[in-house]
Amino acid sequence: MAEDNIIYIGQKPVMNYVLAVVTQFNNGSDEVAIKARGRAISKAVDTAEVVRNKFLTDVKIKEIKIGTEELTRGEGEMINVSSIEIFLIRSI
Amino acid sequence: MAEDNIIYIGQKPVMNYVLAVVTQFNNGSDEVAIKARGRAISKAVDTAEVVRNKFLTDVKIKEIKIGTEELTRGEGEMINVSSIEIFLIRSI
Repeated sequence: MAEDNIIYIGQKPVMNYVLAVVTQFNNGSDEVAIKARGRAISKAVDTAEVVRNKFLTDVKIKEIKIGTEELTRGEGEMINVSSIEIFLIRSI
Repeated sequence: MAEDNIIYIGQKPVMNYVLAVVTQFNNGSDEVAIKARGRAISKAVDTAEVVRNKFLTDVKIKEIKIGTEELTRGEGEMINVSSIEIFLIRSI
C-alpha cells in the first residue's frame, strides 16, 4: 500500500481525517488504511464510520487489526500502547 | 452468546475489565465479546490486548466489528456514537 493511502489519526478534529480519507478515494485509491494508537483509537473508528455513513456509502471495511506497540518515553521507560488499523475498500 | 459472555467497557480502570474477561474464560467460556462505545473504544482495545499478551496467550481475536449507534440525549437531541465489538475465542 502506498504511504499516501495510510491516514494516521492524531489530535485534529475527526472531520480533518474524514476529508483526508475521502480525498484519497476520490483521487483513485481503491484501499485506504486508517491507523491510530492509544486514545486516538476511538477517533479512528469515528473516522471510518463517518466516511462510510455520510460520504462514501460504497466504501466497506475490509479488515480491522488491533495490536500493541512499545514506545520509549523521555526517561527511557518503556510503555505499551494499543493500536488499531482499519482497512477500507471501495467496491468498483 | 450468553449475556455473561459480553463485557461492556465503561469508566472503570482497564484491569477491571481484563479480570472480567479472564474470569469468563476461566469459568469455561470459549468465546467472550468486549463491547464499547465512544471514548471507551480505546479501552476495549487495551482490554483485549492485555488479556491476550499478559494473561491468556491462547486467546485469539475471532472478529472485530465497528458500527454507529444513535443515542437520545436529555433534550431529545439525537447523536451518533461509534461502537466496537471485539470477539475473543480460546482455542482448545
